[in-house]
Amino acid sequence: MLKGNLVFGQSGGPTAVINSSAAGLLTTALASPFIEEVYAAEHGIVGILKDRLFDIGQEELKELNLLTQTPSSAFGSCRHKLADPAIDESEYKRILEVFEKHNIRYFFYNGGNDTMDTCHKISVYLDKAGYECRVVGIPKTIDNDLCGTDHCPGFASAAKYVASSFMEIKLDSHVYDYPQIIIVEVMGRHAGWLAASSVLASHKGAGPDLIYLPERDFSLEQFERDVRAVHEKKGDVMVCISEGCQDKYGNFIPEMFADKDLRTDAFGHKQLGGAADTLASFVKEKFDVKVRAIEFSLLQRCAAHIASPIDVNEAFQAGKAALNFALEGYSDFMLGFDRSSNNPYKIEMIRVPLVECANLEKTVPDEWINEAGNFVLQPFIDYTLPLIQGETERIEKDGLPLFANLKRVLVK
Amino acid sequence: MLKGNLVFGQSGGPTAVINSSAAGLLTTALASPFIEEVYAAEHGIVGILKDRLFDIGQEELKELNLLTQTPSSAFGSCRHKLADPAIDESEYKRILEVFEKHNIRYFFYNGGNDTMDTCHKISVYLDKAGYECRVVGIPKTIDNDLCGTDHCPGFASAAKYVASSFMEIKLDSHVYDYPQIIIVEVMGRHAGWLAASSVLASHKGAGPDLIYLPERDFSLEQFERDVRAVHEKKGDVMVCISEGCQDKYGNFIPEMFADKDLRTDAFGHKQLGGAADTLASFVKEKFDVKVRAIEFSLLQRCAAHIASPIDVNEAFQAGKAALNFALEGYSDFMLGFDRSSNNPYKIEMIRVPLVECANLEKTVPDEWINEAGNFVLQPFIDYTLPLIQGETERIEKDGLPLFANLKRVLVK
Repeated sequence: MLKGNLVFGQSGGPTAVINSSAAGLLTTALASPFIEEVYAAEHGIVGILKDRLFDIGQEELKELNLLTQTPSSAFGSCRHKLADPAIDESEYKRILEVFEKHNIRYFFYNGGNDTMDTCHKISVYLDKAGYECRVVGIPKTIDNDLCGTDHCPGFASAAKYVASSFMEIKLDSHVYDYPQIIIVEVMGRHAGWLAASSVLASHKGAGPDLIYLPERDFSLEQFERDVRAVHEKKGDVMVCISEGCQDKYGNFIPEMFADKDLRTDAFGHKQLGGAADTLASFVKEKFDVKVRAIEFSLLQRCAAHIASPIDVNEAFQAGKAALNFALEGYSDFMLGFDRSSNNPYKIEMIRVPLVECANLEKTVPDEWINEAGNFVLQPFIDYTLPLIQGETERIEKDGLPLFANLKRVLVK
Repeated sequence: MLKGNLVFGQSGGPTAVINSSAAGLLTTALASPFIEEVYAAEHGIVGILKDRLFDIGQEELKELNLLTQTPSSAFGSCRHKLADPAIDESEYKRILEVFEKHNIRYFFYNGGNDTMDTCHKISVYLDKAGYECRVVGIPKTIDNDLCGTDHCPGFASAAKYVASSFMEIKLDSHVYDYPQIIIVEVMGRHAGWLAASSVLASHKGAGPDLIYLPERDFSLEQFERDVRAVHEKKGDVMVCISEGCQDKYGNFIPEMFADKDLRTDAFGHKQLGGAADTLASFVKEKFDVKVRAIEFSLLQRCAAHIASPIDVNEAFQAGKAALNFALEGYSDFMLGFDRSSNNPYKIEMIRVPLVECANLEKTVPDEWINEAGNFVLQPFIDYTLPLIQGETERIEKDGLPLFANLKRVLVK
């Protein structure tokens, strides 16, 4: 059994449950006789390069457990991309130096596809250098676009937020006796999983009429026809637009109007705004009705107050299972979920070779999108609904969220 | 005891708990031996003018009870303002006609200060016409700006949403290793109660650094100085701006830049955007850091998934108490809350003469705002914290909200 110290890092955009993976991994590591010291890097790989590691052994268990209900990345995140080691090895040398200094034998990195790429490169480098270290990726992303796993921790909570919020907005937008067109923008730069989740609201009778995903080319002409058809039939129109939608030339929605060169802010800066905002301007031009653009912004990825309890638990178990696999001797893998049954819903923890998920993107299957490319079909509902079941359980104080309060003591 | 039929209407912008008042009133009315038929007007006073009344007796009790967790105005709302009866009596005559047709002896109207004005005018007119009818206003507004009552149903749930969301966004905005300025816009056209609620997040250590309310003149110069001071001290800056903030000349924030005449959208329309959006452009110009504008939009008034249980219950009790007072013979009043104790929190239901609240606005007391006009003080926290206590209890289905499903059968 490989004995030594452990370091954990968080990378990329945060989610409502990324800290739950941290809680699962770190509390299990603290209890393991094979892990001597447990560290967390400040701002992921950047903290390793800077030798800024927090000593988790100094934290109270109560606070570490509160991480399961604390959104965002408790130890700080980064978007740092390591160079190709064939071109520039300097950062890898530095990582090895820091690992040797602290006798790091277990390295866990929690993030998306870029993170898995970083993990794999580090794993290969350390192996070549003859330094024994188990390198493991733990998935997280509201985008749900990692290959090799049934779904990603973080997605279900964001989906629950998106579907619930669509239902509430739908009711709110209906109250007056005139028609209204509401366009809601959902995150997802390359994959439409999260935008597609709005169909869960439609499934409950209070969701969008039209849903556009980046998986299909976006056409303004078709969009106008679609909106008109719904408007003529029902009056009110509710649209879900993924921020990642592009036309067949690869332009994002705001870029489709960039040649008009008209959109400037009060300071003369060209401003494209978001997809919803831009489409709302377009629709106002074409229809004589009230139009409103809504952007969920950061809320969709940090709304721990409506996190899926299944997601919180799976994120925790992913951290725990990642460590257990590493203790068994496995390395150079990402922890993944294999769904063995949908009814009752059941998953198993699996290992996915890092090369199979690094830098790759899993998009919504084409057959889960309707032919017109403006709605999502039943298989998506069957896939997503089991992931958002149950009511969020959390400890509150004064009717407000209670977040982990960590000491963050740096290791010398 | 006055026997007859009852009609209930909803007016103005919806809230997360306005339907809970409907549930309290309607279920109590259905059980009362003195109320023969129970109706709800479609789109408030507009539905009365059009003689479009729903027969509540046809609804299932189970669905009426679900109204306590259904946001928005279940029977439709309106912004219709009745004329001054001294100038034009025609709409009042029509109301009397419809009331006589349906033997309406109890009229309850749920809304804000405009609604209380409408109530009072109808009350006076019916009285003059010698038609016996009890006319009662039930308060609702996320703005919390009604006079004569300690607070308004709807405010606490919106405050709980605002404070929780600020806490979550604060954590999310901290994850990277560079400073960020976040500007969040909160509703409240004339009163800053809801924007002030963001201080509850600061009170828990994860809220805005600066809070601007419409109660004080807004100065761009001071704003820039304030932001710079926080930025120099802490790096990250989080600002809460009320949409209602105005400069000393009465210009709203986007209007302060209107003379620049530069902000046009892709279609050449002048676009001022929201307060947060405009201030973000202003800050980008002045500071070399990442700036993000967030608007809570409709979510802050319809997020029933995080409603305050105290608010849900008080809204229900307000509907019930309004009816009981009317049955006792009282009329021409608004139901109000009198806070008799803060610890333990305790309120009593009171009657406020409609003339004392019609068209008036209650703003945040000046001494609850700091001298610089950029933060909120402890008395506001003491006032608001008791209102948001407890965890939201609601019946869910498939991990999503369950809303009332009403038949809405029109009375012939």
